[in-house]
Amino acid sequence: MNTIVMKFGGTSVAGTKKLKNIAKIVKSELENSKIIVVVSAMAGETNKLQNYLDEFQCQNSIESDLVLTSGEQVTIGLLSAALKNLGIKSIPLLGWQIPIITDESYEKAKILQINKKRIKEYFSNNDVIVLAGFQGINLDGKITSLGRGGSDTTAVAIASAIEAERCDIYTDVEGVFTTDPNIEINAKKIPKLSYEEMLEMSSTGAKVLHTRSVELAMKNNLTLQVLSSLTKKTGTFILNEKELIEKEIVSGVSYSNNEAKVTISGILDKPGISAKIFGLMTENNINVDMIVQNISQDGVSANITFTINQKDHDLTKSVIERSKNILNYKSLLLDKKVAKISVIGMGMMSQVGVAEKMFKTLAKNAINILAISTSEIKISVLIDEVHTNIAVKSLHEVYNL
Amino acid sequence: MNTIVMKFGGTSVAGTKKLKNIAKIVKSELENSKIIVVVSAMAGETNKLQNYLDEFQCQNSIESDLVLTSGEQVTIGLLSAALKNLGIKSIPLLGWQIPIITDESYEKAKILQINKKRIKEYFSNNDVIVLAGFQGINLDGKITSLGRGGSDTTAVAIASAIEAERCDIYTDVEGVFTTDPNIEINAKKIPKLSYEEMLEMSSTGAKVLHTRSVELAMKNNLTLQVLSSLTKKTGTFILNEKELIEKEIVSGVSYSNNEAKVTISGILDKPGISAKIFGLMTENNINVDMIVQNISQDGVSANITFTINQKDHDLTKSVIERSKNILNYKSLLLDKKVAKISVIGMGMMSQVGVAEKMFKTLAKNAINILAISTSEIKISVLIDEVHTNIAVKSLHEVYNL
Repeated sequence: MNTIVMKFGGTSVAGTKKLKNIAKIVKSELENSKIIVVVSAMAGETNKLQNYLDEFQCQNSIESDLVLTSGEQVTIGLLSAALKNLGIKSIPLLGWQIPIITDESYEKAKILQINKKRIKEYFSNNDVIVLAGFQGINLDGKITSLGRGGSDTTAVAIASAIEAERCDIYTDVEGVFTTDPNIEINAKKIPKLSYEEMLEMSSTGAKVLHTRSVELAMKNNLTLQVLSSLTKKTGTFILNEKELIEKEIVSGVSYSNNEAKVTISGILDKPGISAKIFGLMTENNINVDMIVQNISQDGVSANITFTINQKDHDLTKSVIERSKNILNYKSLLLDKKVAKISVIGMGMMSQVGVAEKMFKTLAKNAINILAISTSEIKISVLIDEVHTNIAVKSLHEVYNL
Repeated sequence: MNTIVMKFGGTSVAGTKKLKNIAKIVKSELENSKIIVVVSAMAGETNKLQNYLDEFQCQNSIESDLVLTSGEQVTIGLLSAALKNLGIKSIPLLGWQIPIITDESYEKAKILQINKKRIKEYFSNNDVIVLAGFQGINLDGKITSLGRGGSDTTAVAIASAIEAERCDIYTDVEGVFTTDPNIEINAKKIPKLSYEEMLEMSSTGAKVLHTRSVELAMKNNLTLQVLSSLTKKTGTFILNEKELIEKEIVSGVSYSNNEAKVTISGILDKPGISAKIFGLMTENNINVDMIVQNISQDGVSANITFTINQKDHDLTKSVIERSKNILNYKSLLLDKKVAKISVIGMGMMSQVGVAEKMFKTLAKNAINILAISTSEIKISVLIDEVHTNIAVKSLHEVYNL
């Protein structure tokens, strides 16, 4: 018999009505499969708990993970009750009851091992296992949490462990779209995507799936489906590149407003100066994305521009200001009003004209490019934030999405 | 080194401010002892969870106990964080992490065994263990809850298991009073009480402690203290009768408005009729308290009056009405507007005049006695509910409390 893993996030489980609806969705999938349903805490619950923790300056500890993992205990109990009310043989399980063994790192634990045998035992008496997402237990017997997107990670990890046929990630959207439908009304649902494309989409702003769970699925060659818990429509399948027979060159356009641009001007252009700057960033756990370096017109000093996540704005400012003597620069400028626009597609960079088309389109719309970065399947540009919508819409059109 | 167990209920842990206050109280007790703090869920939390469960008609199951025990996970995490912020070595633990082994019966599990060795191990690195009350784990590895007053039970059970010096039950009152201070302004805190007296007080209306935890303390000869988490005053000690050297004859006056009176009139007074009636009550899990049987004036038929808990009013009515043919009675009367007033004191019944004084006092105040029941250390009378206050006040005065 096949097994399907279905995952429902916080907005899908917020309230008893929604939980009853999920029970019906699960029932409709039961005919040919055993099912593991992975659920998050109700939306809002985790924020409430996080606020408590903030009041105690409590983080990355036994305590914080105990508090943060209490919400799923409620949703698995209620969902299993709803399933039983529909006559389904169901059992609710916490992470430690499988167990899902993780390493020691609280609030960002990594899964080390999952007891498959126990899952098979539970399936001998039950048709559905309702499993708490986001949580595990370390070798010291303490509860750990998996960090952001943790329930997706649980679902993909358990699906990989038991070699499930598929892992369905239910959200409040119908799948992965060619771009954000809030900006471009003509955005279309993408039927199939490769893992690599999904990874680029996630890391460039599409908030449907966390990169961590996509990476894990790719590693285990597990087919994912992103779909809506509100409609009954087929969603977007994310799978191995080889299974994608017909493919558009460009799959989608994504954007992110979470960027900040940092410009350090008037640095003496000596060897090692970049290493110094980016060494400082690494020391302070600041992720740097796009980097542009120019020699200034005097031929002696240089300017360096790079992007960071907006949340690191204040930290970056103080780190660089503190190091003014070492870096020996003239001025520092930070700008939050920037956006990153990305065009993503498998094998795109080997196709002539994809990048050219992007730059031409932006130029035609009088949008200045502040920085560029590329990978095998992605071109990202940094632009002024005010141009976000027109950039997304015009690129979506020019690539026939 | 001594160990003290301290228990804080729902109103004492509702909110981060109160939890920080508890951390200070715990710190003040740390000088000479290791401490186990047992906490409940925040007040209000359990009601919210119970409402969820009601929506799914979910009770006495794996699911209901998973949901109901999620609240303590939050409070133990936060309290342990607050203790660490005060520089105290603390560890938060759930029931299954000790483990506290219980039987199988969800929502009313009984504790079978507590792993003392594990507690000692935790104390080798920590000065305080913050333990989730109300919960355990059954031999099948599923979380169970201990039912009403469950956190008191956890505290007393763990204190008994490790032979703690004392178990302090913190509440929102300063101890056990000679009667309800809301009715009688002159009510005084009782310094010491025997287990038996406390049991009678609990079962006759004083809501400070559940009978189950008092029984368990008595069985293990464990000294309890009931005290307030808001003041620093010594509370009421509950201990072995032998340790009570000087004793008032009457310790307190308690009352309960949760009674209902049932009168069945015009029954043929044949042998076995009482057995039939009370057999019916037992079959339907209805507790009967006071019983009065009178032969009526015709010398043939009888009237039976007894009291039940108000929650069983409707059930009792329908059970007796359904059995009209078997019981062959004339009329059935149920009355919710009654109150039970109890006078409690160790060895009271062997003292001449205690009962007489009670009946005289009530008569002087023109209060009719509807039924009487007695035990070695208690006299209870049933009266019309409107007389509750005057009965309590006058009895409190006449026994010099």
